Amino acid sequence: MPLPVAVTPAAGRLAVMQTFSVAIAGYSEPRLEHAAQRFLRDLSRQTGYFLSERLADAAHATLTIHADHGSEPVQDLGEDESYVLEVSSAGAQLTAPNPLGVMHGLQTFLQLLEVGPAGYAAPAIHIEDTPRFPWRGLSLDVSRHFISIPVLQRNVDALAAVKMNVLHLHLSDDQGFRLQSREFPKLQDLGSDGMYYSQAEMRELIAYASERGIRIVPEFDMPGHSTAWFVGYPELSSGPGPYQIERRWGIFDPAMDPTRESTYRLLDKFVAEMTNIFPDRYFHIGGDEVNGKQWDANPKIHEFMQAHNLKSNQELQQYFTVRVEKIVSKHHKFMVGWDEILTPGMPKDVVIQSWRGQESLAEAAKQGYRGILSSGYYLDAIQPAAQHYLVDPLSGAGATLTAAQQKLILGGEACMWEEFASDENVESRIWPRAAAVAERLWSPQQVQDVNSMYRRMAAVSAQLEQLGLKHRSASVKMLARLAGTDDIAALDVLARAAQPAGVSIRETEAEKAGGIQTSDVPLNRMVDAISPESEAARKFSAAVDQFVASKFQDSAAESYLRGKLTLWRDNDSALQPLLQNSFLLKEVAPVSQNLARLGAAGLQALDYIDAHKAASGEWRMQQVAMIQQAAKPTADLVLAVAPAVQKLVEGSADASTTP
Amino acid sequence: MPLPVAVTPAAGRLAVMQTFSVAIAGYSEPRLEHAAQRFLRDLSRQTGYFLSERLADAAHATLTIHADHGSEPVQDLGEDESYVLEVSSAGAQLTAPNPLGVMHGLQTFLQLLEVGPAGYAAPAIHIEDTPRFPWRGLSLDVSRHFISIPVLQRNVDALAAVKMNVLHLHLSDDQGFRLQSREFPKLQDLGSDGMYYSQAEMRELIAYASERGIRIVPEFDMPGHSTAWFVGYPELSSGPGPYQIERRWGIFDPAMDPTRESTYRLLDKFVAEMTNIFPDRYFHIGGDEVNGKQWDANPKIHEFMQAHNLKSNQELQQYFTVRVEKIVSKHHKFMVGWDEILTPGMPKDVVIQSWRGQESLAEAAKQGYRGILSSGYYLDAIQPAAQHYLVDPLSGAGATLTAAQQKLILGGEACMWEEFASDENVESRIWPRAAAVAERLWSPQQVQDVNSMYRRMAAVSAQLEQLGLKHRSASVKMLARLAGTDDIAALDVLARAAQPAGVSIRETEAEKAGGIQTSDVPLNRMVDAISPESEAARKFSAAVDQFVASKFQDSAAESYLRGKLTLWRDNDSALQPLLQNSFLLKEVAPVSQNLARLGAAGLQALDYIDAHKAASGEWRMQQVAMIQQAAKPTADLVLAVAPAVQKLVEGSADASTTP
Repeated sequence: MPLPVAVTPAAGRLAVMQTFSVAIAGYSEPRLEHAAQRFLRDLSRQTGYFLSERLADAAHATLTIHADHGSEPVQDLGEDESYVLEVSSAGAQLTAPNPLGVMHGLQTFLQLLEVGPAGYAAPAIHIEDTPRFPWRGLSLDVSRHFISIPVLQRNVDALAAVKMNVLHLHLSDDQGFRLQSREFPKLQDLGSDGMYYSQAEMRELIAYASERGIRIVPEFDMPGHSTAWFVGYPELSSGPGPYQIERRWGIFDPAMDPTRESTYRLLDKFVAEMTNIFPDRYFHIGGDEVNGKQWDANPKIHEFMQAHNLKSNQELQQYFTVRVEKIVSKHHKFMVGWDEILTPGMPKDVVIQSWRGQESLAEAAKQGYRGILSSGYYLDAIQPAAQHYLVDPLSGAGATLTAAQQKLILGGEACMWEEFASDENVESRIWPRAAAVAERLWSPQQVQDVNSMYRRMAAVSAQLEQLGLKHRSASVKMLARLAGTDDIAALDVLARAAQPAGVSIRETEAEKAGGIQTSDVPLNRMVDAISPESEAARKFSAAVDQFVASKFQDSAAESYLRGKLTLWRDNDSALQPLLQNSFLLKEVAPVSQNLARLGAAGLQALDYIDAHKAASGEWRMQQVAMIQQAAKPTADLVLAVAPAVQKLVEGSADASTTP
Repeated sequence: MPLPVAVTPAAGRLAVMQTFSVAIAGYSEPRLEHAAQRFLRDLSRQTGYFLSERLADAAHATLTIHADHGSEPVQDLGEDESYVLEVSSAGAQLTAPNPLGVMHGLQTFLQLLEVGPAGYAAPAIHIEDTPRFPWRGLSLDVSRHFISIPVLQRNVDALAAVKMNVLHLHLSDDQGFRLQSREFPKLQDLGSDGMYYSQAEMRELIAYASERGIRIVPEFDMPGHSTAWFVGYPELSSGPGPYQIERRWGIFDPAMDPTRESTYRLLDKFVAEMTNIFPDRYFHIGGDEVNGKQWDANPKIHEFMQAHNLKSNQELQQYFTVRVEKIVSKHHKFMVGWDEILTPGMPKDVVIQSWRGQESLAEAAKQGYRGILSSGYYLDAIQPAAQHYLVDPLSGAGATLTAAQQKLILGGEACMWEEFASDENVESRIWPRAAAVAERLWSPQQVQDVNSMYRRMAAVSAQLEQLGLKHRSASVKMLARLAGTDDIAALDVLARAAQPAGVSIRETEAEKAGGIQTSDVPLNRMVDAISPESEAARKFSAAVDQFVASKFQDSAAESYLRGKLTLWRDNDSALQPLLQNSFLLKEVAPVSQNLARLGAAGLQALDYIDAHKAASGEWRMQQVAMIQQAAKPTADLVLAVAPAVQKLVEGSADASTTP
């Protein structure tokens, strides 16, 4: 995963033993050698073998790598990332035009590795592969909650594993300015609570990512989403100040003052400093969600608008963005921004990142602008991987574009906003679901089989944990902390049957409770610990479908369902001691009771079915009412297994008509 | 854990909320501030709160720290490590003579933290605490398998958490020389397969440990266990050479040549370089297990022995050790060595580390030598924590010493030899069992309650995982790798019921199979993945004891036993798909079958008991024979639950006589 463009299986398998070795034939450079050594380390982790990291002679190597030439010194958009991987029982050859393709091919080999009855092996196969889109990224908000460098590194590892090539860092927002500036040190000194990256750390991260074929694109959001700038530099804002770091979530009034020359002088110096740190040719200036209230309230800004014939705040922002673009391009970068930057007078070489949707992106392409899609790929929205998977940059409005216009759609970025994620659980919010977006952006458009995707995503998830990601293990730790013990079998049963309610529900619930969600509120609840998508629910639901489709004859499916339903029915009493012992688990007591009720209802439905006796309409109505009650969000959790139990209960109406 | 010297509980609790803050009153220094900040980070990890690391004013702090003065610039043996911790519902005060005591007190506070129905809290309490022994260490072999710096750091964290104060690194042996020497670069260049610590890395580790109150004591084993030296410097050896890094385990012939002056010139330069890296006042030269074969075979050495009136190899080693001691003391260090260095003519300020036992240690003390105990604390021997726990440096022969002689017993070190452990699983070999040794060396001698120890050790184990140790999570990952999937519930049931057979069995079995265990053999089997001590077996066994003692009346115990036995009986069929799919799991198929048999036998015994019907003698004999067969090591595993099942089966003979 992502599924390659062309796969031709062959007979036999290549045994992967402790003698496994790698040689570089043809072009070589340190980055390629490091990639080969890293591959050997990853292979060690995946097998437990002590593999030597020394590279071998091509004559004796198990895997021979051949690159035609080097990549660009600074990785560029649209470089050839293709590769050909040939595996036979005698050995493997990986050829690519340049090291980027080699790195992708090595990841494919790691995914081919299987444990079998006879040992570790890769199947004999011929693969020709190249990405569909050149821009395949993850946009990560490190402002709402700070994300530490080791977690960023692990995300880089994971991006490389699924052949993505961009990590876009949202480095500033109302809630924090996260990168050291030497020119304007109050940005981080007053705008970050001490939680920021030093320039040295950022340079190291950029080097780390570059070694792995990942571009780092920085974003500094302006003119809105910029309160954190104003704590240290209130003169940059359109309001009177003073400012504090924003602790709440939402859209706030402070915005940069587009009317003063001093604003552009500061931004010029700032962009000069930052473009010196980030070698990537693209520079993101945000540009989203300016509410205009500070502008409305400032008479000088009104005067300016009249003097310059700017008729609306939108036109004022347009004036600002055009000027900022001049600064960015002066420093030899292409500007990237959210939909809002698309305004008349904008040069055609800017890139639009669309949070608004395919329409907006297609509209930009029609006007000749390049774009990347993020709408539909918001991981923080807590949606099933399948939902992201089926969003295609070139479907919907994108499908109406000419071939030339379609070429302007560069790809997309999965987005992770951090209002409700922190350093501890952000990996579980991103992985493995981002792998579904990775496949959408790499594999041919017609690759759409959701079941196949889920099967392969489960394998990728296990592989990522082996490589060091913590999306599963951190969840186990958080559950243990909630319970105050690591004996959490019963809590885990509940955790797997549930998933977080959407973020909007969480915000609404907090408001209803008279509280307010701020950046200080701990993210240490059950909802924060569990996976965004319940695999148990998905499997249970598939088994129900199978059982119903078999007209209740599939006894293996029934036995599986009975096992799960019994587990759920009996889990509440096992969980009680933990629930009573922890203030953090109190809120999930009703969820646990509901799970027990769902289990009992499902078992009763099975009993009707086994007895070939149709359940009464009254019983079914009662049960469905109960199930729908149980399916409602409680403690910001939903019991993801509820709809499938309802299907079973409703199905029991047909029990008497089956053989 | 370790249990403090004096604990006085009081009424009430101190709520630990997100406003928790720490102040330093009295003496301060950077190390103390770092300790307070680290404490706040640890508390964040244990609660999920976003705690500010900024220190507060004493007037407003939840916890106030007071140290009278600083510690020694280089941490020394015997510094005052005491502290007093006072917790009330209004706040907490921690006072200590110096930062070492403060650090211990902070660890105690972290252990007091509990999750409860009303929130996180520490109970109101008054604790006065000081260690029983001044030398409480872990000896870690990094030669047999290399251990990476991050794993060493995590071990330092864990040592600090259980109030140990020495990390002793066994840096050279036949299988590897693990530290960079600039004077003799061929030591690492030819003797380490590239797996060694640079001097910069070692200095960083020393600083890391020093910040946490941990001394790092280096060991370079000589004159035996030194093949790795000779790969680069064969002229140092007593045989003809050339040499290769040793891949096998055991005692080997190569030994330094004690008869040449060039040997001492080299060692003098070497010790000068190393004592410059390691600030600790103690320097370990090993000295164990010289078999003398190279000396016997070398005519020049014979001549030397005759000329110097040395009548045996033992006297020759004695000559060597006395000369090495002069070098070590010339460089202002106290020499430490294993039992063998204790020979006539040795200055009284050397320290004996005893692998031989309490007798040997007591004998040294009688002669006026200081000593530390390691016999009984070998974690690689895969023994229950209770067994290590009940070994006391001052029991047995130690109890016969005068008070003055007893003072010479400085403490002890848990030992972890790495023939059968690697970077990946060494944490699970050490933790949490080393915590039992930590308590033995810190707490009063009369603290001996094994059940209490296990209860508290389980809490420490969970706490260490929260702090970042991987003794549990790495095991989960290894099981997933064995199975080729992360859906490992059934494998986990087997893993928890089993534990590794002892190392000697593993070696014997390998020889019987015609194989040989070398450093190249992967440590990726079930035996490597599972915990050294089965907690499930210990709990099951306790429940059997309780049930039998209740004359089969304790229905809660019976229900627990029935649950476990049913799980085990039914697990084999659930596990079959995994066993068939992985060559690494093939060997455990009979173990899984045996577990199923044990489950069935136990359930049948319970049925007899419930029916008030004595099981027939014949049935019991058959079952006991089966159980004893099942209890034998297979695949280097033992089913640790077998003895308790046998007790239940034997108990069923009395079923008819109970009410």
